[in-house]
Amino acid sequence: INSKLPEVSTTIFTVMSTLANTYGAINLSQGFPNFETDKGLIDLVTLAMKKGHNQYAPMPGLLSLREIIAQKTNTLYQSNYNPNTEVTITSGATQAIFTIISAFIRPNDEVIIFKPAYDSYEPSIELFGGTIVPIQLSMPDFTIDWQEVATKITSKTKMVIINSPHNPSGSILSKEDMLQLEKLLEGTDIILLSDEVYEHIIFDGLAHQSAAKFPGLAERSFITASFGKTFHTTGWKMGYCLAPRELMAEFRKVHQFNVFCSSHPMQYALAEYLKNADTYLSLPNFYQEKRDLFLSLVKDSRFSFTPASGTYFQLLKYSAITDEGDVAFAERLTKEHNIASIPVSVFNLNQQDDKVLRFCFAKTEDTLKRAAEVLCKI
Amino acid sequence: INSKLPEVSTTIFTVMSTLANTYGAINLSQGFPNFETDKGLIDLVTLAMKKGHNQYAPMPGLLSLREIIAQKTNTLYQSNYNPNTEVTITSGATQAIFTIISAFIRPNDEVIIFKPAYDSYEPSIELFGGTIVPIQLSMPDFTIDWQEVATKITSKTKMVIINSPHNPSGSILSKEDMLQLEKLLEGTDIILLSDEVYEHIIFDGLAHQSAAKFPGLAERSFITASFGKTFHTTGWKMGYCLAPRELMAEFRKVHQFNVFCSSHPMQYALAEYLKNADTYLSLPNFYQEKRDLFLSLVKDSRFSFTPASGTYFQLLKYSAITDEGDVAFAERLTKEHNIASIPVSVFNLNQQDDKVLRFCFAKTEDTLKRAAEVLCKI
Ligand SMILES: CSCCC(=O)C(=O)O
Ligand SMILES: CSCCC(=O)C(=O)O
Repeated sequence: INSKLPEVSTTIFTVMSTLANTYGAINLSQGFPNFETDKGLIDLVTLAMKKGHNQYAPMPGLLSLREIIAQKTNTLYQSNYNPNTEVTITSGATQAIFTIISAFIRPNDEVIIFKPAYDSYEPSIELFGGTIVPIQLSMPDFTIDWQEVATKITSKTKMVIINSPHNPSGSILSKEDMLQLEKLLEGTDIILLSDEVYEHIIFDGLAHQSAAKFPGLAERSFITASFGKTFHTTGWKMGYCLAPRELMAEFRKVHQFNVFCSSHPMQYALAEYLKNADTYLSLPNFYQEKRDLFLSLVKDSRFSFTPASGTYFQLLKYSAITDEGDVAFAERLTKEHNIASIPVSVFNLNQQDDKVLRFCFAKTEDTLKRAAEVLCKI
Repeated sequence: INSKLPEVSTTIFTVMSTLANTYGAINLSQGFPNFETDKGLIDLVTLAMKKGHNQYAPMPGLLSLREIIAQKTNTLYQSNYNPNTEVTITSGATQAIFTIISAFIRPNDEVIIFKPAYDSYEPSIELFGGTIVPIQLSMPDFTIDWQEVATKITSKTKMVIINSPHNPSGSILSKEDMLQLEKLLEGTDIILLSDEVYEHIIFDGLAHQSAAKFPGLAERSFITASFGKTFHTTGWKMGYCLAPRELMAEFRKVHQFNVFCSSHPMQYALAEYLKNADTYLSLPNFYQEKRDLFLSLVKDSRFSFTPASGTYFQLLKYSAITDEGDVAFAERLTKEHNIASIPVSVFNLNQQDDKVLRFCFAKTEDTLKRAAEVLCKI
């Protein structure tokens, strides 16, 4: 078999979660909560099924859900999305990302991405013959050097992908960053894919700088968002994306032949739930407490860190402990100490190894305490 | 915007369902049941969510579900699928089809398809720069002329797509057809995509000829299947595919970056449900009764027909009624007579118009009666 993706193997999230299961390790690798989903939301799914919402939803999603999302987005980010034509419900944000790339990338189109990057971007671009133009984020704070970006934009640049709050680093883009990007893209046809799945998980009073807030970006942007991250339901595989009408029309041409539509009962439930609950407004506090707990518990360990500004991931640097490569160390930590994490080098340009592991703190207090106790002994 | 799919517009299923809603028409267009899903299955989804199965499922699907599918398939079709490596759960069969095409089709690869064809195949192939080699099925019974197929196979042929029971015609492939295809593909590297989503909806004592039954086909085949069609839950968007290990490994490379995985609670529920229920064995009778009822009610109308051998679709020829094109007539039938159907020309080679409409009979007795009453007056 002549593989279209010869270099791709199983995603690191699956590899580490499987290893965690094999060794009965505390799984802080793949990003998902280990606490309960709101019973109210679960009851709404049951209600949806009992009321008979079990057949195809409309292709772009239930209008009631799209309306509430447009309203929420427009309120939070002073934008102007039309629920009919500019919001589409997807089977997770990853499906939105794959579909966006499918709809726009042709052979030899260049796509600028920032490394470390979520691992779905590159193979998706590669599948369509696109050329990946990777830019390494600058240490120690994972910042973007906009002058470097300027030098990488060519007539072939079709798309730029940004991700704030950023997985895996937990860093965020500032208003100044967004303004720089806006200026850089001005007058071009470049599409911006702004992966904002952690939009509601942001700490220390910082504000999420959605591409929706910047007219010069919004007019060229796909924004991807995730119900899984926001409502502790990663396994429901529900997300959505926003884009101006003309871009969204192209997206839907592909979406309808990829998944056609997303789960009807889950959409119904989310629409009802969002009518009465803006629980996402409490997410910053909810996750900041978890971050702070985790950091307070590991601060006397031999790991060092800069606190995450967003996401439910915390990087820990282990160079004071061992010279081992991060993949080897992450494996050993799982097998010998029963704590699973994600080695960051797999997301870096040229697998650059900064001796950093990513830990997911979307976990119960008890899990975080048990994990920290082990980490402090290493 | 320079569209990758300039000729694609909204799928006919969405167009007709929307028109049906606008005119309050009886919707026999898009294929979905209008009766209740088994309460026992719904309760299992609720149980799954309450038990906490709300985070990511394993990327290829829950093993318990894959095991039961492998067992069922191997029993029904005397095949030998390995649940670990040769079964993947997908977010509907359409997502499986899109992902198969994504994983294998490169620019200028030729894909043989039979027209009329389900409308997702062509744009998906086009997105990857593949060349569609369409073959029109022979009238009146929508049969395949295997000699014609032989002349269309070239060194560039990468894939052949078959679909039995066939949407939209309701025809099926015979054992003889499958043997002919097996012989044609022998010694080539051609991949077979066998779309078998209606495998359990087959009438008059006929047997479904799965590609899984024919070793020379199975070794090169992706078989796509649908929980939505079998368990009356098209809106849950759950399906699966089967393929030999090496082909499935390539599929999963793409699947993990398209949707990553499918709904965890739905997978859990389906696995539990399948343990105790082989309700799919009663589907032939269940739907044959509906077909027979519908046909008995329209047999004195001016529509003519050959009874469908499978699927939940029945074609009705209307040339005795009007000369109108089928798109125009389907529209008028919806607007003036409040019965929505699907014009078959949209699936034909060069939109060949045989004056045939497709009606979905996955409907309650009452709906079928009301629809037939109108059709008899036309
Ligand atoms: C789709 S599995 C990966 C989940 C996730 O976003 C992460 O762990 O980074
Ligand atoms: C995905 S909507 C189309 C449903 C269907 O398979 C059909 O009506 O043919």
